[in-house]
Amino acid sequence: MRAAVLRDGAMVVRDDVPEPVPGPGQVLVAVKACGICGSDLHFASHGEEMLAAGAEMEGMPDTLADIDLATDVYMGHEFSAEVLDAGPGTDAPAAGTIVTSVPVLVSTSGLEMIVYSNSTVGGYAERMLLSAPLLLPVPNGLDPRHAALTEPMAVGLHAVNTSRVQRGETALVIGCGPIGIAIIAALRYRGVETIVASDFSPTRRELAARMGAHVTVDPSQGSPFHRSTPAVVFEAVGAPGILDDVMRKAPAGTRVVIAGVCMQPDTVHPFFASAKQLSLHFVFGYDPAEFAESLRAIAEGDIDVAPMITGEVGLDGVAGAFADLSDPERHCKILVTP
Amino acid sequence: MRAAVLRDGAMVVRDDVPEPVPGPGQVLVAVKACGICGSDLHFASHGEEMLAAGAEMEGMPDTLADIDLATDVYMGHEFSAEVLDAGPGTDAPAAGTIVTSVPVLVSTSGLEMIVYSNSTVGGYAERMLLSAPLLLPVPNGLDPRHAALTEPMAVGLHAVNTSRVQRGETALVIGCGPIGIAIIAALRYRGVETIVASDFSPTRRELAARMGAHVTVDPSQGSPFHRSTPAVVFEAVGAPGILDDVMRKAPAGTRVVIAGVCMQPDTVHPFFASAKQLSLHFVFGYDPAEFAESLRAIAEGDIDVAPMITGEVGLDGVAGAFADLSDPERHCKILVTP
Repeated sequence: MRAAVLRDGAMVVRDDVPEPVPGPGQVLVAVKACGICGSDLHFASHGEEMLAAGAEMEGMPDTLADIDLATDVYMGHEFSAEVLDAGPGTDAPAAGTIVTSVPVLVSTSGLEMIVYSNSTVGGYAERMLLSAPLLLPVPNGLDPRHAALTEPMAVGLHAVNTSRVQRGETALVIGCGPIGIAIIAALRYRGVETIVASDFSPTRRELAARMGAHVTVDPSQGSPFHRSTPAVVFEAVGAPGILDDVMRKAPAGTRVVIAGVCMQPDTVHPFFASAKQLSLHFVFGYDPAEFAESLRAIAEGDIDVAPMITGEVGLDGVAGAFADLSDPERHCKILVTP
Repeated sequence: MRAAVLRDGAMVVRDDVPEPVPGPGQVLVAVKACGICGSDLHFASHGEEMLAAGAEMEGMPDTLADIDLATDVYMGHEFSAEVLDAGPGTDAPAAGTIVTSVPVLVSTSGLEMIVYSNSTVGGYAERMLLSAPLLLPVPNGLDPRHAALTEPMAVGLHAVNTSRVQRGETALVIGCGPIGIAIIAALRYRGVETIVASDFSPTRRELAARMGAHVTVDPSQGSPFHRSTPAVVFEAVGAPGILDDVMRKAPAGTRVVIAGVCMQPDTVHPFFASAKQLSLHFVFGYDPAEFAESLRAIAEGDIDVAPMITGEVGLDGVAGAFADLSDPERHCKILVTP
């Protein structure tokens, strides 16, 4: 079958990928849509640094340890799919059911994240394996392309839940890429009454407003902290220097949720955070309940993800889409529809 | 009257300080004991940098803005004192009452922290002014020298409260100077059942054990993270590099409470914190209820501060005590008894 894979830092299409065969508890699905995540772009460009950072870190299972960048890497973790077949003795939704799932594959050898792998096929492929117990049928006849945004919207919901933001508090979102937009949508969904969004890009600010921001700020025209007094700040840029700027300017007592993933070493002034008693909550991913709530919110029309989808490509278009996504004026989320 | 003041980076004794005169709502007290805080040592050595850092920061009233280092600076914010006299129309405890107070002076021009000031005398003096509504009488005939530790112990209590640590969770305290020791005492007071304390100094480790640590670790013999799996980590060193080391080694999901105040820029790897969803809670000071609870815990014998007091000097000994405190093998808390 066909799949787009990462080879030597670039996405290339293969048509000789072995057909996945579902084992017990697994389901074979046809990918309907798979969003391209910023982390995939980053892994494609900086895979070696990410593996090195993972190896240097203690305190968690190293999911990146077994990846060999000299061999093709499968990616794609924001997917919806149609059930085709189930493994032996597996209780699964009927063939033809549209599903999504947290990107985890259960096998006889344990759990594997469906994110970067030399062996487990992800969503940039015609077909892939999923775990029957983790499948969520897509309800309400929701467009599978919209269902594919369950995952990134769950990331936003998790960030908002972690912040414990109250409806009456002012929330500032710094960076209106896909993660920032997902946070804005989740804030609106939770009923937060003052959502301020900051981004240098006019297109992104416009999308932020459409997705729920009450106020948008162009930081080239002045700091968003001079335009609002947030109780909660969401950092959704993930570049060096942003965190220190937030620590320098945030009001005393601010809860800062760091949703952007900064891969480089960064310099901060801890004194700013100490003197103002800031709390910094680094977030990553979501829990299964947040994933399910995200799907429900999209399917019930509480969150409209349609404006986020700015492009759609086949497997042959993945490489071009990776390049296009670097321009904030052109794209938010590009879907791969194999 | 006499007071030890900061002049050109050194503590010198003056005998020509004008006698403080209590205004409405104020009380004149005779200082019984005043602890020397690490922040005072730091301000003496790095006052200019601290003022510069304060000026660079936004989002809070700049309490340091008005300080002129070319003029004598009064310090001393960990005090107990005896009431001498009250200002006009002021409802105050009877003369002779032993009191303590959060280090805030209320005057007709507003609130001022009693910490670093060119005009408001602190605890390194024979007499000072306090605010009548903020006074806490020292109960149970508690030794005024022990009552002077109310303030640093409140810092520990606030750090522990912020962590929301549960009794069954493992708490790791990194650094067993006065702040780390106050945290250990507060953890024990809260009934935490596994308190691990780490410090290079044998003397400090011994004091940590005496104040409530169940396990002490010498980090030169191996990382404390290889000896325990903490749910909560208290960083009580405040030097560059420590935070990144904690982020690198802490287990996923750890709540990190940063009680040490690092005045220098510091380099961290945000990716470590992101991948493990760490939360970093920077703490500073305490609230008035925590201050009152700290006094109560000491007065009722729930926290025994006696082992922390390793020296006692008069005003003439302040300069020497500042020098002595740089050696972790010799001292924890030195009291000034004017």
